[in-house]
Order: sequence, then structure tokens, then C-alpha cells
Amino acid sequence: MKAIMNHRSIRKYKSTPIEESLLNEILLAGTRASTTGNMQVYSIVVTTDQQIKEQLAPCHFNQPMVKQAPVVLTFCADFNRFNKWCTLRNAEPGYDNFLSFFTASIDALLVAQNVCIAAEDKGLGICYLGTTTYTANKIINILKLPKGVVPVTTVILGHPDEHPELTDRLPLAGIVHREVYQDYSDGDIDRIYAAKEALPLTQKLIEENKKETLAQIFTDNRYTKKDNVAFSKVLLEVLEQQGFMNNE
Amino acid sequence: MKAIMNHRSIRKYKSTPIEESLLNEILLAGTRASTTGNMQVYSIVVTTDQQIKEQLAPCHFNQPMVKQAPVVLTFCADFNRFNKWCTLRNAEPGYDNFLSFFTASIDALLVAQNVCIAAEDKGLGICYLGTTTYTANKIINILKLPKGVVPVTTVILGHPDEHPELTDRLPLAGIVHREVYQDYSDGDIDRIYAAKEALPLTQKLIEENKKETLAQIFTDNRYTKKDNVAFSKVLLEVLEQQGFMNNE
Repeated sequence: MKAIMNHRSIRKYKSTPIEESLLNEILLAGTRASTTGNMQVYSIVVTTDQQIKEQLAPCHFNQPMVKQAPVVLTFCADFNRFNKWCTLRNAEPGYDNFLSFFTASIDALLVAQNVCIAAEDKGLGICYLGTTTYTANKIINILKLPKGVVPVTTVILGHPDEHPELTDRLPLAGIVHREVYQDYSDGDIDRIYAAKEALPLTQKLIEENKKETLAQIFTDNRYTKKDNVAFSKVLLEVLEQQGFMNNE
Repeated sequence: MKAIMNHRSIRKYKSTPIEESLLNEILLAGTRASTTGNMQVYSIVVTTDQQIKEQLAPCHFNQPMVKQAPVVLTFCADFNRFNKWCTLRNAEPGYDNFLSFFTASIDALLVAQNVCIAAEDKGLGICYLGTTTYTANKIINILKLPKGVVPVTTVILGHPDEHPELTDRLPLAGIVHREVYQDYSDGDIDRIYAAKEALPLTQKLIEENKKETLAQIFTDNRYTKKDNVAFSKVLLEVLEQQGFMNNE
């Protein structure tokens, strides 16, 4: 609980490597996560080699921590291992479809979060990289992911070299719905975002970016429609190429 | 760490309700999870009403715990709130595409796992329901989820009324790849699945199901191609209907 409540994303790391036994303990904690039908349809690629990290860096928009931190973990939806097992055991796998991709993604993401909490509990720092799905095609090549395997998220792992403040969150009442979904009125939205919009950081960002509102920084700069559409195409092509779009 | 290593899915619950303050503490722990660009593009629907739980039960293949446990949590990928905020703040949201759905799903799943670990840390029991994506269309109707919102997983929450053994897992070496993906030889697959196949439970299942191998129980009974294809269609239609497939 303490590890959960104290989570902050770490973007500056010491170069100190992570001991093998500690890394294994953390990864093992990952595998205790719930998994669909106990199929464990995921894999974790542990990259510590500097050359491979340098190849991965552009996939993550050259964020310095990719090269700086000792460990890069790429969490993959993986039906390849399960399919091979089925075929060797005289069973015909039917996992080349979108539902199976999503099932395997859920598996991989629950494992990733277990790994992160276990790592933080051990005093390590972590940072998720949302760029993984944007450049999945390139990551597949670098990490030699075969058919049936798709990278869904990346976690940077290492000894923290900074101690940032906790990040703000929307009030719980803005996130939680009782019994069924209670759709938001304009007044609800104003209330939910009021504290966030009043932060000094928000004012600073608006000035720096020469925008009228914080929302515009998201739509115009950080997460634009143009990028989202381009990345959607990449991801859908990756699903096709990795054998997850046979939906007939 | 202890909560993570002691996780077991609980399928029998006491009828004792969960105190409001405890539930809020657990949900708050959920919101400390990493979230893409701190957008928090997820919602949690907390269902305790017996009538609504009874409506949800068939969506989860009538597993008794849905009606029996005090709380059903439906975790949703949710761009509705964020889109409304953008529109109210003179910003044009571009989140009606597949990438945005997947981004929001990642957010929702990391929150779900935080909630589960926090709950288990507090002595409660949890069980994930993978059925959520199979019947997302029906859950959307029951929980009145608007456009921009898709249920991605469900967690049952309550006081455990059983204490099952830890479930087996594949050896860590079968899940983790060093530097890049090391594809599996037939011998690798044999080694990775050897312990699982040797379990007394496996032998029992094979006899009960009159199959030759454990893998056939998965392909022929539990997760069939026919079901996966049908559920893939449901999920892709849901993405279309909820406004996440404008990829041009």
C-alpha cells in the first residue's frame, strides 16, 4: 500500500546496475498477477545491453532515461509460446484474432503493474513509456518479436536519481461512478478539473505554450489528432502483421 | 510485496459489505497508478445494488460470485470525460481512434491492478472477470456507458470465504527474454510446460474432459476459435459504436 501511494514516475536514474537476484525477485512478483485462464499469454523482454538500448531510444522519442537507466523492460502480449505448445500437443490454437490480442494485452499490463509496484517496494524507480504502441513496428524489429507477439508497454527501471513531488490527480468522485455511469454535466467538468486548472504548474504551462487553456496543450501539442491517427494505423498494421486480425 | 506474492483469485465471498471508507481508500490507491500524460482516461463503475448485479451476472456467464460478492468494479477506458473537458475549454479533441482506445485501456488496467493489490493488502479478496470484453455491448447498456467509454475488465471485490492454494505459474525463464526475444524450440516448450503438465490437477482435468492433452482443453473447450472470433466481432463493433474507430 505504501509503495502504491508513494508512486512517482522517475526520469533521472543512477547508472548503478540492478542486481540479478533483485531483478528476478521483481519479475517473479510480476508473474503472480492474475492471468486469463492461467494461460500467461505475455512475455517480458529485459534489455540491459547499451547498444540495444540505443536502438530502442528513438522508438521512445529519445527520452534520455532509455539509455541512462540500467534496465528497459518491454512487456509484450504473447500468444506465440502458447500457440507453439498447443501445436506440439495436438491441439489447434484459435488465437489469431483481435479478442486474443486484447486478452494477451490485459495479461501483459497486469504483470507490468505488479513489476512496477514490486520494484518501488524495493526502493527502485520506474517510468512507463506510452510510446511503445506508437512505434510497435520498430520495436518488433529491434527486439526480434515473432508472429503472435506485440509490445504493449515499456517500463524503465533503475535506482532513482531524483525525488519528484507526487503528481496531481483528479478528485476520486470525478473518476468513480456509483451503480451505473453518471454522465458529466458542464458543471461537473468544471468542478472535476478546477483544482488541476488552478495549479501553478498549469498556469506556467499555458504561458510557456502560449495557449488559452491546459486542454489545448493536450489537443494541439501533446496528443494531437494527426499523431493519434498515424499511430492508430501503425498499431492496426502491427496487429495484422503479427497475426491478430483473422476475425472471420 | 507480500500482497503481490500471496495473490489468489477468490471465487467464494461472505455477504459482509465493504465499508465505504475502506472502499474509497482502495479506489484512491487505484488512482495513484501511472496514467498516460496524467490524462486519467478511465472510469470505475462501482456496483453494489443487487438488481444491477443480477443484470450483470449473465454478462459474466452467471458465475455465482457476481451476485454473491458485495462489490462489482467495472474498469472502463474513458475518453468521454476528457473530451467534454476539451470541448468546454476551446480545444478540439482528437481521441476517436484506435490508438486512443488502447491508451485508455492501458490506463484502466494499471488502475485495476493497483486496486486489486490495495484490496488484497487490506485482507479483501478479488477476482478478475475476463468475460468483460466478450459481452462489452451488453455491459454498456446495463451500466449506461456513453460514447467514448468501453468496459475493459471487471473485478469482484469482497471478504473471502475460501483460501485456495496459490496457482501454478510457468518458470520465470520461460516468460523472460534477455536483451531480445529468444524464440522457443520444441525442447524449450517441453521444458517450460513440463511442471504444469505433471501436476495432479492437469491429469484430473484431462481425464474429466476426455482429452489427450491439457492444451486441447484450452483449444476445444475453454477458449475456442469459434468463441474468440465471435467475441472479436463484438469488441470491434463496440469500438466502432463507442467512437474509437475513426482512423483516417
